[in-house]
Amino acid sequence: MRIVAAKKILKANDQLAAENRERFRTAGVFVVNVLGSPGGGKTTLIEALVGKLQPKRGLAVIEGDLAGTVDADRLSARGIPALQIATEGICHLDANMIAAASRELDLTQCDWLFIENVGNLVCPAGFDLGENLRIVLLSVPEGDDKLIKYPTIFQSSDAVVITKADLLPHFEFRPERVAEDLGKLNPKAVVFLTSARTGQGLSELAAWLRDKSQGSHGPQAGP
Amino acid sequence: MRIVAAKKILKANDQLAAENRERFRTAGVFVVNVLGSPGGGKTTLIEALVGKLQPKRGLAVIEGDLAGTVDADRLSARGIPALQIATEGICHLDANMIAAASRELDLTQCDWLFIENVGNLVCPAGFDLGENLRIVLLSVPEGDDKLIKYPTIFQSSDAVVITKADLLPHFEFRPERVAEDLGKLNPKAVVFLTSARTGQGLSELAAWLRDKSQGSHGPQAGP
Repeated sequence: MRIVAAKKILKANDQLAAENRERFRTAGVFVVNVLGSPGGGKTTLIEALVGKLQPKRGLAVIEGDLAGTVDADRLSARGIPALQIATEGICHLDANMIAAASRELDLTQCDWLFIENVGNLVCPAGFDLGENLRIVLLSVPEGDDKLIKYPTIFQSSDAVVITKADLLPHFEFRPERVAEDLGKLNPKAVVFLTSARTGQGLSELAAWLRDKSQGSHGPQAGP
Repeated sequence: MRIVAAKKILKANDQLAAENRERFRTAGVFVVNVLGSPGGGKTTLIEALVGKLQPKRGLAVIEGDLAGTVDADRLSARGIPALQIATEGICHLDANMIAAASRELDLTQCDWLFIENVGNLVCPAGFDLGENLRIVLLSVPEGDDKLIKYPTIFQSSDAVVITKADLLPHFEFRPERVAEDLGKLNPKAVVFLTSARTGQGLSELAAWLRDKSQGSHGPQAGP
């Protein structure tokens, strides 16, 4: 039996992530790793951002799920190039999966790549994929206490995107509590309050993403 | 460095789970492992079931979270004996944690023990805790496509409890799709449609739980 220690796997992941990051940088692709619970609105947010970001070359999506092709089918039906990774039971994406998947994409045809991770507030936090930005979604129905319960993922993200804000009247969810808790865990991160249904907050989020992409090599810098 | 293979850990977990199961059986405690996504309504469902189950001796709860004591504090404030396990980053509870936690409980004072697992639709599926029943929650805001995306957890559960059914008018969620998908994945499992807010379905769920506990050694059989 071959035994591999977790530390070695994580080290190998970091190495592969650095290679991914360099490949994406050279190709002029800005990469966003999208995290969040199952059903938190990751696919819907990506769909809503396509029009707002106005990519120069194009926007592609890598979808991670344990099984099935539900999300990739949904995006493809809307004309968004989408590739599905079936993790076959694994609870997160890793840099090796992204290396393999990104070789299937024509990077000359996109300047934005969104990676929708497996719906999970725990495991994806530990795996760098080679992304430029990491955003974590928190939907209003999940409750405003999640930063206390799942600190690691919020500590490792650049932004918290509160989704389904149109449902605020139906829940005891205080966006200001999220901002307060995030201030303690990860003061550099920012919070957006959004609803894909009403459009609330999407322009602000898109502007922030564009700004970040320009600060990096970014789509605007070109290959 | 000590290296332990995953298979050995799982084997050890199964052994510890069997020991837990025997300890609970001897004490006349019926144990329910409650799974589901973060914010799916696990704590709220347990709170709502306390009155419905009418335990003879009492009902205790073991709470699993990465950090914090939010849920145990909430249950304790309502007079429900609750013990918090802080997994410190681990994405699921295991039988060893339950063995340690259950030694802190006075099992002579309860005939029901609910274990609220870490909010996660992936990892908890692989770990037997020594429970009698495993139920997985699926909240309406999460969407009705989750059985396709996260099949393992639905395959390993005795019931799917749809929660937040009062929100059905606000979402495109078809309970019949859940029943259909479950019929393919796990035909022996049953589906309950519930709302802790309106009380919908709670009596049916409580009746089913009582029936299962009687079919087992159960609270009624006594220690």
